[in-house]
Amino acid sequence: MVEVELYDDERIDYLLADNSMKIIQSPSAFSFSLDAVLLAHFAYVPFKKGKILDLCTGNGVIPLLLSRKTKGSITGVEIQDRIYQMATRNVAMNQLTSQIELIHGDLNHLQTRLLQSHFDVVTCNPPYFPTPSKTEHNHNEYLTIARHEVYCTLEDVIKACKRYVRPGGKVAMVHRPGRLVDIIRLFRKYKLEPKRLQFVYPKQGKEANMLLIEGTRDGKADLKILPPLYIYQANGSYTEEAEDIIYDRK
Amino acid sequence: MVEVELYDDERIDYLLADNSMKIIQSPSAFSFSLDAVLLAHFAYVPFKKGKILDLCTGNGVIPLLLSRKTKGSITGVEIQDRIYQMATRNVAMNQLTSQIELIHGDLNHLQTRLLQSHFDVVTCNPPYFPTPSKTEHNHNEYLTIARHEVYCTLEDVIKACKRYVRPGGKVAMVHRPGRLVDIIRLFRKYKLEPKRLQFVYPKQGKEANMLLIEGTRDGKADLKILPPLYIYQANGSYTEEAEDIIYDRK
Repeated sequence: MVEVELYDDERIDYLLADNSMKIIQSPSAFSFSLDAVLLAHFAYVPFKKGKILDLCTGNGVIPLLLSRKTKGSITGVEIQDRIYQMATRNVAMNQLTSQIELIHGDLNHLQTRLLQSHFDVVTCNPPYFPTPSKTEHNHNEYLTIARHEVYCTLEDVIKACKRYVRPGGKVAMVHRPGRLVDIIRLFRKYKLEPKRLQFVYPKQGKEANMLLIEGTRDGKADLKILPPLYIYQANGSYTEEAEDIIYDRK
Repeated sequence: MVEVELYDDERIDYLLADNSMKIIQSPSAFSFSLDAVLLAHFAYVPFKKGKILDLCTGNGVIPLLLSRKTKGSITGVEIQDRIYQMATRNVAMNQLTSQIELIHGDLNHLQTRLLQSHFDVVTCNPPYFPTPSKTEHNHNEYLTIARHEVYCTLEDVIKACKRYVRPGGKVAMVHRPGRLVDIIRLFRKYKLEPKRLQFVYPKQGKEANMLLIEGTRDGKADLKILPPLYIYQANGSYTEEAEDIIYDRK
């Protein structure tokens, strides 16, 4: 491991159960969630080579996890400077600078820094919630931007995914079920044909609280609904399938 | 029970496990499937009164089942004369002529016989498959029309649902997961906002092979993904939840 500086209330957590990967987190700026872990597991990535782009990368959790699944190059884009700096230190700390490149920028205005139609896979764990009104704004600006559509709407994100993925390439996203109709409408609008859809349920008998979707640019219509994924057992502990993903046992 | 005539290879089956309802079936013309039973269970219908319309009603299985859930009036529409005749005999046999009205007609050309924006609920178990080419045509014309989009496309069906449901009323449909993207696109196009979506899985670990969707005309965007429904256990027998539905135990 490489030594890194920690700021403010940052801490270093283990990202994987085998202690092989660590990650800088900050409750006041950015902590990754289960959503990112599930998306990294859900997304198909080529193993031997390939070019992968992660939009709204936050502290780089998805590039870090994807580096376990592919030898290809991974690019992460983050708009907030402080969080981009966290991601940079995370990549350095895990000695992944040769595989993961990070860009500090706005996905709406990256044309000059990223090649269009260049990537085999684009992943994104975008802000889930509509832009809050001025008075509703989270007092913590970092969290507000990560969670709300302040700098990018759902349409901005999906449009950017389309811009950077090559024809035949895949776009994978995690989001809330309440937005499924919009997501499907926008995937179609931007020629990202939905191919795989999985719903995540907190436990049996509950409504889904997360969805994972993958589309193929210019693909033919042929959607598969994967088996549901349950996170918790009735007794509150993780299900075996959730543990397999969280602890990277498969 | 009222005596009815049977034609060709028709037979009478019990529709419910308590023998309280019977239904005429014909392997060569129309037999109801689990899909219809699940749709009748899934659809919300007002109990005390209300006006319900079932498009593509076949032998009337959905009106028969819905009559157990509502005291309201139920109208069924079927395009094929022979199958319409089966439905008519089914309604008579079960002594439901005061509650269920049947119309022999084409849902694309019913304007003069049905009132627009009139119904509280519209249900439909439509043909699932695109129109076959001439050479692919099922040799059995009855089954071809019931299963393929010969007389009505998915868009025709959803447009008709919109035409007959009142503002704020509900449209419930059963279909295949592969068509989810089209269904959602068309529900939105015809102002039927998807509100409840449930996927049906043959058994654990398999992809979904059926979906149930309900939209509200002119409703606000707010989609819930219901818990998944499994039909079979690993040993091949029905799950308890499937039995509860099939045997109308709840």
